[in-house]
Amino acid sequence: MPDLSRLLTPRSVVIVGASSTPGALGNSVLRNLERHGYAGEIHLINPKRDQIGGRPCLKTIDELPHGIDAAVLAVPGPAVLPAVQALAERGVGAAIIFAAGFAEGGEEGVAAQAEVARIAAEHGMVVEGPNCLGLVNYAAGVPLTFVEAPVLDLKDKPAAGIVSQSGAMAVVLGTMLMGKGLGITLSVSTGNEAASGVEDYVEHLIGDPATLAIGMIVEQFRKPARFLALAERARAAGKHIVLLHPGTSNAARESAATHTGAMAGDWQLMKAKVERAGVVLVDSLEALGDVLELAVRGKPVRKGGTAVLTESGAFKALTLDLAERIGLDLPAMAGETAAAMRTAIPDFIPVSNPMDLTAQALVDPDLYRRTMIPLLADGNFSALVFGIIQTDEATSARKFPAIIDAVKALQPEKPVIFAGLDEGAPVPAEYIDALRTIGITYFPSPDRAFRALRHLGRFAERDFERAGAASVTVDLPSGVIPEYRAKQLLAPAGIPFPAGGFAKNAEEARAVAARTGYPVAIKAQAAALSHKSDAGGVILNIADDAALDAAWVRLHGNIAAYDAGIIVEGAQVEAMGRRGVELIIGARNDPDWGPVILAGFGGVTAELLHDVRLLPADLTHAAIVAELRKLKQGALLDGYRGSPALDVDAVARLISDLGRVLAGTPSIREIDLNPVVVYPRGEGVVALDALILAD
Amino acid sequence: MPDLSRLLTPRSVVIVGASSTPGALGNSVLRNLERHGYAGEIHLINPKRDQIGGRPCLKTIDELPHGIDAAVLAVPGPAVLPAVQALAERGVGAAIIFAAGFAEGGEEGVAAQAEVARIAAEHGMVVEGPNCLGLVNYAAGVPLTFVEAPVLDLKDKPAAGIVSQSGAMAVVLGTMLMGKGLGITLSVSTGNEAASGVEDYVEHLIGDPATLAIGMIVEQFRKPARFLALAERARAAGKHIVLLHPGTSNAARESAATHTGAMAGDWQLMKAKVERAGVVLVDSLEALGDVLELAVRGKPVRKGGTAVLTESGAFKALTLDLAERIGLDLPAMAGETAAAMRTAIPDFIPVSNPMDLTAQALVDPDLYRRTMIPLLADGNFSALVFGIIQTDEATSARKFPAIIDAVKALQPEKPVIFAGLDEGAPVPAEYIDALRTIGITYFPSPDRAFRALRHLGRFAERDFERAGAASVTVDLPSGVIPEYRAKQLLAPAGIPFPAGGFAKNAEEARAVAARTGYPVAIKAQAAALSHKSDAGGVILNIADDAALDAAWVRLHGNIAAYDAGIIVEGAQVEAMGRRGVELIIGARNDPDWGPVILAGFGGVTAELLHDVRLLPADLTHAAIVAELRKLKQGALLDGYRGSPALDVDAVARLISDLGRVLAGTPSIREIDLNPVVVYPRGEGVVALDALILAD
Repeated sequence: MPDLSRLLTPRSVVIVGASSTPGALGNSVLRNLERHGYAGEIHLINPKRDQIGGRPCLKTIDELPHGIDAAVLAVPGPAVLPAVQALAERGVGAAIIFAAGFAEGGEEGVAAQAEVARIAAEHGMVVEGPNCLGLVNYAAGVPLTFVEAPVLDLKDKPAAGIVSQSGAMAVVLGTMLMGKGLGITLSVSTGNEAASGVEDYVEHLIGDPATLAIGMIVEQFRKPARFLALAERARAAGKHIVLLHPGTSNAARESAATHTGAMAGDWQLMKAKVERAGVVLVDSLEALGDVLELAVRGKPVRKGGTAVLTESGAFKALTLDLAERIGLDLPAMAGETAAAMRTAIPDFIPVSNPMDLTAQALVDPDLYRRTMIPLLADGNFSALVFGIIQTDEATSARKFPAIIDAVKALQPEKPVIFAGLDEGAPVPAEYIDALRTIGITYFPSPDRAFRALRHLGRFAERDFERAGAASVTVDLPSGVIPEYRAKQLLAPAGIPFPAGGFAKNAEEARAVAARTGYPVAIKAQAAALSHKSDAGGVILNIADDAALDAAWVRLHGNIAAYDAGIIVEGAQVEAMGRRGVELIIGARNDPDWGPVILAGFGGVTAELLHDVRLLPADLTHAAIVAELRKLKQGALLDGYRGSPALDVDAVARLISDLGRVLAGTPSIREIDLNPVVVYPRGEGVVALDALILAD
Repeated sequence: MPDLSRLLTPRSVVIVGASSTPGALGNSVLRNLERHGYAGEIHLINPKRDQIGGRPCLKTIDELPHGIDAAVLAVPGPAVLPAVQALAERGVGAAIIFAAGFAEGGEEGVAAQAEVARIAAEHGMVVEGPNCLGLVNYAAGVPLTFVEAPVLDLKDKPAAGIVSQSGAMAVVLGTMLMGKGLGITLSVSTGNEAASGVEDYVEHLIGDPATLAIGMIVEQFRKPARFLALAERARAAGKHIVLLHPGTSNAARESAATHTGAMAGDWQLMKAKVERAGVVLVDSLEALGDVLELAVRGKPVRKGGTAVLTESGAFKALTLDLAERIGLDLPAMAGETAAAMRTAIPDFIPVSNPMDLTAQALVDPDLYRRTMIPLLADGNFSALVFGIIQTDEATSARKFPAIIDAVKALQPEKPVIFAGLDEGAPVPAEYIDALRTIGITYFPSPDRAFRALRHLGRFAERDFERAGAASVTVDLPSGVIPEYRAKQLLAPAGIPFPAGGFAKNAEEARAVAARTGYPVAIKAQAAALSHKSDAGGVILNIADDAALDAAWVRLHGNIAAYDAGIIVEGAQVEAMGRRGVELIIGARNDPDWGPVILAGFGGVTAELLHDVRLLPADLTHAAIVAELRKLKQGALLDGYRGSPALDVDAVARLISDLGRVLAGTPSIREIDLNPVVVYPRGEGVVALDALILAD
């Protein structure tokens, strides 16, 4: 990791391209430094000016004293490379490059960016950008950006850090968090990441005690493995990383390529991997802000159900619908909770969760406190949401103070959330501030409260345990490894295949059949034969030796007719198996994200519905089973409409074994087992085909 | 329709249960009337007071002058019935009943509510409630509620009406609309709807010129057919009805039953029918407010694509993702638009939709106007969304006026929407007001803008045409009509069945087989036999006369063994058909919602995925085909992975014919055709089974 301290807390700063023109980048940077009362040295470079705002200007970088910590390059693209070179020679520790037109701007730009990276590496200089908006270290009062950066009072405010490739999005998220009354420790935009990337700043923020969570907007991770390791560290440190990552659509991935110079990878794979490492992935700016707020304010969200106190029966019904839609658990109260609730509320109000207090709190504001007590004590609930009708100042004045006082009195150990049902109600800001001060997150709409809670709840429910089993190393040739060889290699690792073996001639084939028993199937084996069936290279249901001899001749004839250039090495001879339910299972060592296994149902319908899951390769048996059950047709696994329950455990063992092979054999690019047939519970699973692609 | 004028614009009002105690219902109602400067007569009833606030009090209702327009019953439940009776006898035109404990409060409550309804019907009195919060006629200055109702200045404000069963939700939606700077003409909560319901108030609002759209929160329509007819009228009048209707979950439907005394029906059926009639159905309070605002402010949303002007590449990518997720079309610009755009923006900005203007508008605010011009002229776009980074007051001051001036100058005929990317930015309220004044809807987040736009876009795309074909009347007995009879009855209406016929004995069976040709299937026919297959009542693939004779004996033996009490009338003898793709198709005359047809794929997977659609029975052929394509496995219809395209037209014709039978034969409760086999395109469809249930 590069040492970021000279960039993030510089004792001296130089603005290359300083300007006296309001609105010019080099002017805005200076004004930011002055507004924040930056205490270090400020140097200015402008070949045409002797001074700017009373500060002396140097003509060139070469005139700078040696060893300035950070340079801000407020100069156009073509001036960047010479400036970076000159700064490096003056021993400057870090450079921020605003200019665009590098890796996102064609071949020349790519070369220029590579040169920036080379210079940085040679001189141990940290570079932020190019194509970025700089950074603001709010905690240290260091704004190195041309975007007007407000001075934040971080005292008593829970704070998050912002790390974004997009400068605009860093600014947007910053504004949103400030609007929520949160602090920001550091906001960085990394742009094209010539020589430092989001990973570097995340690592810094994990180590920063004032940063309680990290909000990220990323279009492509350039160092996925490093990010995953950092995400695990953040989780261990109890800091949520909340990530917004466009790219679910092809259009978005193409768009990212044109404006960041980065080809975005497989979004689903990214998702599977970052979630496995503990990242909370969201799909909108709104959710990014909401989840970050919930992550840093108040008590942590634990696994468990949610209790809802509200004031409308119709809203209760809406909440039940939403809860089902998003998977939020609204369990019933425990027996003694219900009994205590019964004594806390008027007789005409039925006890339930969500608990509809009707408009009763308007005349009896202590109702909030009395009903909170049993809910906070009930182990069925790990969070409490107030769904409150705010209406106007007078109504708010009867409700907010009662809730605020109740929370102060009860000091809940569980997160308490306030959701206004009527967004836009003229609620005095002091009430919202007061809620926030005592650790209650205020949401302007109930759906947002429930969705944010669900995001962190899903994190709390996640099983981060890793499979303990040792990895398995398979000694592989490189290239495409045909079926018979792949089966020989994988069988010792525990992958179940049909009884059978490889035969180079009809005699050997008969010997295999004698071992397995008839009927058998034979499948032609050749390195260049990727679609055996299409070539007539598979013959099934061979009943006896005579039929086998005939089939052997026919098989070779079929292949010769299909493509005379294919050299058949022999055939895999296998006992015909029973019918079962077909799955597809594949495994891959992704060069960016590491080992991953794809599992799903086979068949046209499953393909049409994309009914597959991507599983990180180190899941525990229980986690694999849980993932399989999440398939759209997952109910089939446990038996549906009279069909028998399937041997899910055997499927999970196969996936687990594949994972051990992937982990122990990095040269594997892909393993394709298709189809895999699963039988009723206790009767196992068998992979009918196998193909390995290795480096 | 009851005459609501005495309720909604009363010349005189009586408060039964008037009170001088602040906070008491009868006091709050009076204060509301006074605050709104209600100009009519106000009468007060309180047996214990001579006057309240200087107004004389009567002891009993009997002392009232005859013919007062509206009474507000601010009295507890037990006092309601005698008061309603007394009011009716005094010729009072309308009564509002706040008290709860009627149909939602057990058997006694149900009886009391029925008595209220009886008195209302007998005396032609309109009753609102019980279990409601009253109403506020903002336009006429008539607040008949105990909830503090602000005085609204409706001048120059686009206004909506609010009709809600839940009083609390009516208040919530009202607060939200006021927060959006919208007017409200009338807000009514109908509660238990003893004698007037949401339908009555919707009818009133359709006729009210000041009401531009109607927002509804309904837990159960008590008069579905009437509501559907009204929804069609609203659509014809160009007024959107935007509906929030809980009940997607079982839990919500159960909850609704306990607090409104109404059993909620089939939510999916409600959805299919109200959308067919033109209602915009939303799933959250937030969306209800957002869509209502978009519906009443600015230009109407038409069918077509959306153009997006924004200031961040990452946001462009997020927008592309969201658009794919919600089905929003973001088409490319037409050639000449792109060319005009090219000249309007700096060279370094690529032309695309969404159009990322980068931060360029900060230095060149006229950019908004220049880029709007070609987009507004481009027929590919029916709406324009600005996705703007607001940041702070200084930034807003550079952006908002430029956009506002551009819109004023260009007078767009398309809806223009402003979405702030950074919710919570300290934007001066005057800018938002100025946007609203010129018909631009302001959204605090882009996702909400796109979702609201998509709601109205989906409405604009909907095909409201009705199938012109004449209805078909089938002469039916009542009860369960067995397969052979059902097929005889439905075949003349065009429903295709396998060649075959009914046979009472083996000889007749052979005669049928001689006509259809072998192989045939025979299926036992008996009124009491609902699961033929389970009883061994179906024998397939009968090859010749001899086999048929044997099968005939076996069939009868099977049934006798299954249940000796079943009297077999005979058997349906049919030619065995080819295999094809199995569908399930059912039809129903719902007693509440009218004719509807369910269509989907057959099989376990389809059942597991709930892969069915509910189709109103009067869809055009094209609309039926479009609905079938929306099935989760809809791609199978057009051929997938080498499977042939299916005869979708034949399926649509069958559905259309079923619809004509439903429409012409109201005594039909259900028709079940299961399975229906569809063959490749041009080769038709055949219903293998048929069952009718009739009144």
